[in-house]
Amino acid sequence: MATSPRASAQFSLILRVTSPAAPGPFAALVDALESAGGVVGDITLIPGDGPRTRELVVDAATADHAKQLEEIAGGVADVTLESVTDRTFLLHDGGKIVMGGKIPLRTRDELSMLYTPGVARVSRAVADDVSRAWDLTIKRNTVAVVSDGTAVLGLGDIGPEGAMPVMEGKALLFKEFANVDSWPIVLSTKVPDEIVATVAAIAPGFGGINLEDISAPRCFEVEERLKAMLDIPVFHDDQHGTAIVVLSALLNALKVVGKKPEEVKVVLTGTGSAGVAVTYMLLNAGITQVIGCDEHGSLHTGRTDLDPWRARYAERTNPTGFVGTANEALAGADIFIGVSVPGAISRDAVATMNDGAIVCAMANPNPEVMPEEIAGLAAVIASGRSDYPNQINNVLAFPGVFRGALDVRARAINEEMKLAAANAIASVIAESELRPDYVIPSPFDARVAPAVSAAVAEAARATGVAR
Amino acid sequence: MATSPRASAQFSLILRVTSPAAPGPFAALVDALESAGGVVGDITLIPGDGPRTRELVVDAATADHAKQLEEIAGGVADVTLESVTDRTFLLHDGGKIVMGGKIPLRTRDELSMLYTPGVARVSRAVADDVSRAWDLTIKRNTVAVVSDGTAVLGLGDIGPEGAMPVMEGKALLFKEFANVDSWPIVLSTKVPDEIVATVAAIAPGFGGINLEDISAPRCFEVEERLKAMLDIPVFHDDQHGTAIVVLSALLNALKVVGKKPEEVKVVLTGTGSAGVAVTYMLLNAGITQVIGCDEHGSLHTGRTDLDPWRARYAERTNPTGFVGTANEALAGADIFIGVSVPGAISRDAVATMNDGAIVCAMANPNPEVMPEEIAGLAAVIASGRSDYPNQINNVLAFPGVFRGALDVRARAINEEMKLAAANAIASVIAESELRPDYVIPSPFDARVAPAVSAAVAEAARATGVAR
Repeated sequence: MATSPRASAQFSLILRVTSPAAPGPFAALVDALESAGGVVGDITLIPGDGPRTRELVVDAATADHAKQLEEIAGGVADVTLESVTDRTFLLHDGGKIVMGGKIPLRTRDELSMLYTPGVARVSRAVADDVSRAWDLTIKRNTVAVVSDGTAVLGLGDIGPEGAMPVMEGKALLFKEFANVDSWPIVLSTKVPDEIVATVAAIAPGFGGINLEDISAPRCFEVEERLKAMLDIPVFHDDQHGTAIVVLSALLNALKVVGKKPEEVKVVLTGTGSAGVAVTYMLLNAGITQVIGCDEHGSLHTGRTDLDPWRARYAERTNPTGFVGTANEALAGADIFIGVSVPGAISRDAVATMNDGAIVCAMANPNPEVMPEEIAGLAAVIASGRSDYPNQINNVLAFPGVFRGALDVRARAINEEMKLAAANAIASVIAESELRPDYVIPSPFDARVAPAVSAAVAEAARATGVAR
Repeated sequence: MATSPRASAQFSLILRVTSPAAPGPFAALVDALESAGGVVGDITLIPGDGPRTRELVVDAATADHAKQLEEIAGGVADVTLESVTDRTFLLHDGGKIVMGGKIPLRTRDELSMLYTPGVARVSRAVADDVSRAWDLTIKRNTVAVVSDGTAVLGLGDIGPEGAMPVMEGKALLFKEFANVDSWPIVLSTKVPDEIVATVAAIAPGFGGINLEDISAPRCFEVEERLKAMLDIPVFHDDQHGTAIVVLSALLNALKVVGKKPEEVKVVLTGTGSAGVAVTYMLLNAGITQVIGCDEHGSLHTGRTDLDPWRARYAERTNPTGFVGTANEALAGADIFIGVSVPGAISRDAVATMNDGAIVCAMANPNPEVMPEEIAGLAAVIASGRSDYPNQINNVLAFPGVFRGALDVRARAINEEMKLAAANAIASVIAESELRPDYVIPSPFDARVAPAVSAAVAEAARATGVAR
């Protein structure tokens, strides 16, 4: 039973309204909106004589709620609703990113150096020594954000065009958090062979490839093959970005509850791209007991319905061979990790976990179990949402990971670099600051990306993948 | 016999030098550089006490000349040469373009609208109606600049990394001249099937495809197949950009010499991508007599050594079935167009052309015949160089062509749009302003791109390829 969502900017509207230059009607509008659950934000008076025209921002809780608030605004006596704008759509008008020049190009001399004929000497130099592309082209700071649009947020397979707003947003985050230049590349194919061939073909101009929102199990094959083919990092963020941030949260949460990685039992729901990667990262970090569950229950070596990727998963996990549901598996567990669907586990099952239970429920948009339902039952609760404490947000990892990789012109992003990233995120919060509701830094904590990039670059050097 | 090249910015150096705080040595350095043919430009005094440190820009004529000037600077008495920087390489350090956000992303509210969770509604809206990608993503202003690096400037097949500086330069020009966002995509394959598959795969995020520096005859096949597959413009600039600008120059040059398109005889050398496209565009513009020549002489239907593309060319051109060399073909010709190599035609052959001869010699970096050699023999002389009058420069066409196409969300760039572009470029110069040395606007003439984009958009609407 999820509680009703709170009003937030994502569903906010700009209402342009005109009311008489007299007390009463405008206040009535504000009252009507807030009485209906809207949160009235910035109000701007448009200069002019006569009746007063204002633009008013109001947050709603859902798209339906926004519609309702619009109707309410249209029905307030003596107030004329001139126009209604969805702020989220307004921000997306014409897309969110641009390309720009680093140097002005306004004179013949500049043209002759930046383009023909002068550029020929630069091209010749790069052709003669391809490694100079890292100095003389954008390669050293540029990442392709590649998606086929098959597993976008909670929306599933919405196609390449539908994926674009997310990929543009990802590009914005790369720039804002780590000054990485990136460009979205969305694909009109879902065939692994074609995805691999396309990404390999466009790779020479990029210093890294961020794969995004490609559905499992194709994402595993695509990434594995590209990593083998290319000499630049290939990183499926849904897998490894999530895994890094989850591990960093767990490292701190274990400190809060006073347990060690090697002694805990973990139950995970959702063995898609994120679930598999999270699990393997936990194993690499020294956690030995992980039981992964899909909608049919625990993955174990007796299952005959698993694809090769999940069969391998069953072999590497569930050392006791547990057979049962996720709720059953939670009895005596220390950690729950959800990368599945709302309602995947119950409040009652959480109650059967060991003392000092850690719950990371990251289903999108609503967690596997709502934090308020298990308050008091779990010692540490994390989710994917920004309106609860301990938000597991990939933006803590991927900008710094690629920044560090690009800084050393890394050939790959390996396990050591990912572990270094997780430790770096965790270490941003001093042990003395750790609390049950503060095991993971804010996505806007400016210390995170530099810490991650430095740790990743160092790990790349130490493991010989730096150039 | 080409004259020796002039000093220019493309070969310029920054010399950092220290000399005593007394008259003499520094002046001797300037004198030595200029006596050796260098052109000393900006000089900056670095603030400080004691000996004087300055940075001095000096233009050289060639890379060897720059080397020579460096040695001369190192040998001037009482002057210490601290460092030497190649300005063209300096401008390329780290590449020339960046990606940027259109909107700040610094708060949780902004994150919730520009990225998750708010972006999901936008993605859903685009997925439900793919045409909304033109409103809600960068598609409407974004062009992929695609090259396999096989025919880069005069350098030939220098590979994808080598092509990057040129493609970045192209992206700069798109932005500077027409506010088109573009991103370079260089390919690790030269196989037409793979190029076609790759470009088709990445097309959904782009509003247009600019093919660049792909060698003939593969470029013909690649472009033809992509045009048939995609519902956005596909435009091989080496072909059509060149053709548009050449036609615009000829339209004005014919006015200067008082001839009409339908009565002139044209000889063209170089039947690569540009030569073929220029020829077809001249035919579309009403010129009927074109003789194309390669290194074996005129293309005619009796040739058995032609690939299918050039065989088709031979069928469509050379109506009199002329057999012979380019120099022989020039007897009685009105127009020469060179898109081949220096020395492809002789001064003596130009002397056999009709009165009012028009010569467009665009070989890179040195024309088929140097303008000074044929002064007085030809009435109008154009070249690809910025240091002579009448520079044929593709930048006059492609920015405005794509601007116009994007403005109307065109499905293609068709013949009518290209002709409209050529007429628009030509019309920027009023008939009263036309002179033999001014038949084509400057690349920096700010009137050109708006005129081209308006004409192209109008032609797209008129021919039904606008959305």
